[in-house]
Amino acid sequence: MFRAAIVILSDKGARGERRDQSGDVIRGMLESIGGQVVDYAVLPDEKEVIIEKLVELSDRLGVDLVVTSGGTGLAPRDVTPEATAAVVERVVPGMAEAMRAYGMQKTPRAMLSRGMAGLRGRTLIVNVPGSPRGARESLEAIMGALEHGLNTLAGRDTECARE
Amino acid sequence: MFRAAIVILSDKGARGERRDQSGDVIRGMLESIGGQVVDYAVLPDEKEVIIEKLVELSDRLGVDLVVTSGGTGLAPRDVTPEATAAVVERVVPGMAEAMRAYGMQKTPRAMLSRGMAGLRGRTLIVNVPGSPRGARESLEAIMGALEHGLNTLAGRDTECARE
Amino acid sequence: MFRAAIVILSDKGARGERRDQSGDVIRGMLESIGGQVVDYAVLPDEKEVIIEKLVELSDRLGVDLVVTSGGTGLAPRDVTPEATAAVVERVVPGMAEAMRAYGMQKTPRAMLSRGMAGLRGRTLIVNVPGSPRGARESLEAIMGALEHGLNTLAGRDTECARE
Repeated sequence: MFRAAIVILSDKGARGERRDQSGDVIRGMLESIGGQVVDYAVLPDEKEVIIEKLVELSDRLGVDLVVTSGGTGLAPRDVTPEATAAVVERVVPGMAEAMRAYGMQKTPRAMLSRGMAGLRGRTLIVNVPGSPRGARESLEAIMGALEHGLNTLAGRDTECARE
Repeated sequence: MFRAAIVILSDKGARGERRDQSGDVIRGMLESIGGQVVDYAVLPDEKEVIIEKLVELSDRLGVDLVVTSGGTGLAPRDVTPEATAAVVERVVPGMAEAMRAYGMQKTPRAMLSRGMAGLRGRTLIVNVPGSPRGARESLEAIMGALEHGLNTLAGRDTECARE
Repeated sequence: MFRAAIVILSDKGARGERRDQSGDVIRGMLESIGGQVVDYAVLPDEKEVIIEKLVELSDRLGVDLVVTSGGTGLAPRDVTPEATAAVVERVVPGMAEAMRAYGMQKTPRAMLSRGMAGLRGRTLIVNVPGSPRGARESLEAIMGALEHGLNTLAGRDTECARE
């Protein structure tokens, strides 16, 4: 059992011009491994706004996991990885590598996702793409390690065999 | 159609002691996907010199793509990735990962290429190795995503299916 | 022939409550490719302590290679990559990518190893996991490039075919 938050980054979504389709995909996948989604937000692609939200979720709500969706590409306003880099204290590069390597089995465009993963205190923050397919495939790629990672982070599984 | 620049990093090349062989390889590959090479330079492995050139190409000439070749290894004077890191505002880690993963299918030495990729404004900067073979294989690795990436960056392809 | 140091990061090991099992694995593998282990230490997971040791090994002892083991996971006190990032001047991302990609062929948990590799002066520093198996598999992953990398770094192999 872990507490999670979902943050959708989309200028159109935040203005109510587009309905988020990735949130439900992410929610379903997190619930399937025991996650409880305690917060959900749709925000514009503004670095300072994203930073503020990630800090609130980590420091004040103390969720175990934040999954952001959107803002990871090359478009001029895609700044989710930069906002994430500004708040994490320790990076988890292998999760981002795994998401892209998995995605590239389907399409070379997966290499353009600039998403990162990192830790702020005991909160793991993971960036996935904004499309439902990109979000689903990215989470699929890390599913096999996510529970163990969250357990280690929470101090429930310190004597791990590997790391 | 996009505008590109090629920057060769080589102390010997800059002194006229070695003829660059990678430039033609890179030029041919870029032209094959609609690139027009508007600038070509051979510079020494000096971080400040490289930084100045990358800034000029991005900010003043406004090229869509800069491909650097050379200076990505472990030799003491290899500083191309450090110069690139100093000028990019957003990193594109997946392109570098893809170049190395592709290269490692041929030789484990590909893991020693420290090349990076990143964005400065609307210019994409990609570091490839200095050898003709390393340069060619690295560009091959990202060919399938390069056009889409440049289109997204230029704002011509914002409603992308994935990122 | 190259000079190497091994640094084990383990709070329990440093207190004498757990015997290090990875050091012998690492030593054996380094010796098999001509490495001479000139320093071995077991230190607690304290960032400043690790930094001090890495600087000593690089700047004062001038070893060619430092292999750290442990402190690369998601547990709150795992800070080896952060200490390493604080001392290296140039990163070698491909080595870390190669270690994780190789490990993930065995277990998805390998993506949780946050180890990095980088250069301080002419010293290569590589982080591997703390478990004997994780340490062995990580070194296996880079074995094919390690000698060439150390030769290049030492200036013995400057005309490399690739980087």
